[in-house]
Amino acid sequence: MAALGEAAARWAPGLWRRAVRTAAWLRGRRFASGGTQSPPTFGLLLDIDGVLVRGHQVIPAAQEAFRRLLDPQGQLRVPVVFVTNAGNISQCSKAEELSAQLGFQVEPDQVILSHSPMKLFSQHHDRRMLVSGQGPLVENARALGFKHLVTVDELRAAFPVLDMVDLQRRPKTTLLPRSDFPAIEGVLLLGEPVRWETSLQLITDVLLSDGNPGTGLATAPYPHLPVLASNTDLLWMAEAKMPRFGHGTFLLCLEAIYRKLTGRELCYSGLTGKPSLLTYRYAEGLLARQAARRGWAAPIRSLYAVGDNPMSDIYGANLFHQHLQTQQEGAARSCASILVCTGVYGPQAPSPTVPALGSEGSPFHGHRDFGFRPELLQAAHVVSDLHEAVQLVLRKEGWAL
Amino acid sequence: MAALGEAAARWAPGLWRRAVRTAAWLRGRRFASGGTQSPPTFGLLLDIDGVLVRGHQVIPAAQEAFRRLLDPQGQLRVPVVFVTNAGNISQCSKAEELSAQLGFQVEPDQVILSHSPMKLFSQHHDRRMLVSGQGPLVENARALGFKHLVTVDELRAAFPVLDMVDLQRRPKTTLLPRSDFPAIEGVLLLGEPVRWETSLQLITDVLLSDGNPGTGLATAPYPHLPVLASNTDLLWMAEAKMPRFGHGTFLLCLEAIYRKLTGRELCYSGLTGKPSLLTYRYAEGLLARQAARRGWAAPIRSLYAVGDNPMSDIYGANLFHQHLQTQQEGAARSCASILVCTGVYGPQAPSPTVPALGSEGSPFHGHRDFGFRPELLQAAHVVSDLHEAVQLVLRKEGWAL
Repeated sequence: MAALGEAAARWAPGLWRRAVRTAAWLRGRRFASGGTQSPPTFGLLLDIDGVLVRGHQVIPAAQEAFRRLLDPQGQLRVPVVFVTNAGNISQCSKAEELSAQLGFQVEPDQVILSHSPMKLFSQHHDRRMLVSGQGPLVENARALGFKHLVTVDELRAAFPVLDMVDLQRRPKTTLLPRSDFPAIEGVLLLGEPVRWETSLQLITDVLLSDGNPGTGLATAPYPHLPVLASNTDLLWMAEAKMPRFGHGTFLLCLEAIYRKLTGRELCYSGLTGKPSLLTYRYAEGLLARQAARRGWAAPIRSLYAVGDNPMSDIYGANLFHQHLQTQQEGAARSCASILVCTGVYGPQAPSPTVPALGSEGSPFHGHRDFGFRPELLQAAHVVSDLHEAVQLVLRKEGWAL
Repeated sequence: MAALGEAAARWAPGLWRRAVRTAAWLRGRRFASGGTQSPPTFGLLLDIDGVLVRGHQVIPAAQEAFRRLLDPQGQLRVPVVFVTNAGNISQCSKAEELSAQLGFQVEPDQVILSHSPMKLFSQHHDRRMLVSGQGPLVENARALGFKHLVTVDELRAAFPVLDMVDLQRRPKTTLLPRSDFPAIEGVLLLGEPVRWETSLQLITDVLLSDGNPGTGLATAPYPHLPVLASNTDLLWMAEAKMPRFGHGTFLLCLEAIYRKLTGRELCYSGLTGKPSLLTYRYAEGLLARQAARRGWAAPIRSLYAVGDNPMSDIYGANLFHQHLQTQQEGAARSCASILVCTGVYGPQAPSPTVPALGSEGSPFHGHRDFGFRPELLQAAHVVSDLHEAVQLVLRKEGWAL
């Protein structure tokens, strides 16, 4: 947590200052939203899975909500960012997918993936990083600024004797170890990979060998190489009745293995995605830029974060709200958490893996590094769905429904 | 541990009594070993990986050892069983593989795989079991006596929305949930599977839903359905310089996930493979039967267990030796542990994941359920390799080298 706080303090002010400069430049231009409505002083951070869609299905209430948020020209009346903990997709693809699902143009810079704030980790961008995840993995890592990448598959090809779990994929002959493979200098975990056994083994090998998995070391180095990870969600809600494993479950396995093997804790040099403060600071910056681009001169004072997952959406929004009470690098003064019941959380029939909030002895589903502060799981507002959430926000801000 | 002790007390005497009856029947037949040597009163339990072979390579000292153990007719002079924690192979294939590697005929009933003692778990044989592992999985489970089996792949095909990690394998359309799939009544973990994310998810779903993974339950049942597992080895030694993940690493992940989701511990109704007592009792029974079949009338009093892994081979042999000091259902009175340095353990250059024995603060690499008793990690004898081990045994037993 300390590392995240520092990183946020270090980077987000710059981002926000850039946004403010853009706003000043645009202020003279025409007021783009038209009509008599004064410019918005609030913005929305919307989660995607369990709020807008569930699996392949668009949630009808989300479509209704956007009918209220769009002006007659099909333009958003308020700044909106889509903040997802998904990571195995590109910003552009996610924006296209959302545009098709919601029926209006969503821009790539309205989409914040779990790893988007890693653009700010420039101190690691020149390291040779082992990257884990799936989908457009290398493209995503490059877009974040990482220049020297080795995928788990590439490492496996260089050292075939490391990956022995799958009997069908074991090397059939004895192979000479490679000695010309440059050392790995860090680990970048962008999203849940496939074949967890392979990634867990090779990442562990890299950490225990100080980046030279073809060798054996007498003592595992500690602290180990830097590990950056995005998306600590243990679970997420898809079409199945019970929640599905997220990247947080993969991280949990990696942490358990590292602890069992070495007797020490795996340490992250950076964690991004909800509920990390860094993600909310990053979102605040993008909302300010969006408002500036639209020519809305008023600073965005109030944020509303809508989500279905108490452990990421609500915890993160409340954490950021608390943070804003003491430190304000940007314009925002509050971040209200709004919990919807269309996803992971359902007050009537909680899933066995998502116990009712605050029930005694509930297991803690958040990531180890975010600590367990049960009061941060309590949403400022609990509503049925996104439509109700948007009505609530517009009413609170004195806007016409 | 308590459950294992009870199971051993319940089952092994019967096995041993059968062996003794066979011995009595065979006693009148000719003394098969020939020569003047009196019949052996000792037997060998030999680990395979890291003792006989390492990856594809036969360890030369193992070949030398067998030159001492075979008579001029190419028959073993003493009873020998090969006790491996491997499980993703059939007994027949393993016997054939060993025969080819060692240059003499190894019989299938000389091979004890990690799950072989599950033949004794007849109270679970009629349950509908979800089975996890690879290789000849269903054949192995059937050979153990389990009659009603569902593989992870079959469960996945019945409920495609459960397995969501691999983007490429997600269902492309919305599917109706099946309601005609009979409930699963237990989980059988025979060896490390491939695609751990799929097995971890589906096994967890089965446990949390009380065997009906298409549904969601308000509360996860506890105690959960019976879980039987074989091979708790965290690591094993292949060709790579550092040890590789074994089935114990998969179990560690499953346990960590179950604990994180429910706040409770995953419980095993049975654990087999080294270092479980049950495996050593089972091996003792097979050695007695082998001696009987060879017409060796003398009871097998002394066992020697040779292995490379302190946590499974040495811990298990010492545990069994302790057990024999107070309870003797069979003929054996002792089980001496002999550690070789051709595998996981190397006294000069310990791997980072296998710290020197007894070093301060060494992490515990054994399975949670076997407790941590550091004194059981100390081998009765430490030798270079199997050849030295066999020479030691023959000398101790007063046999000609």
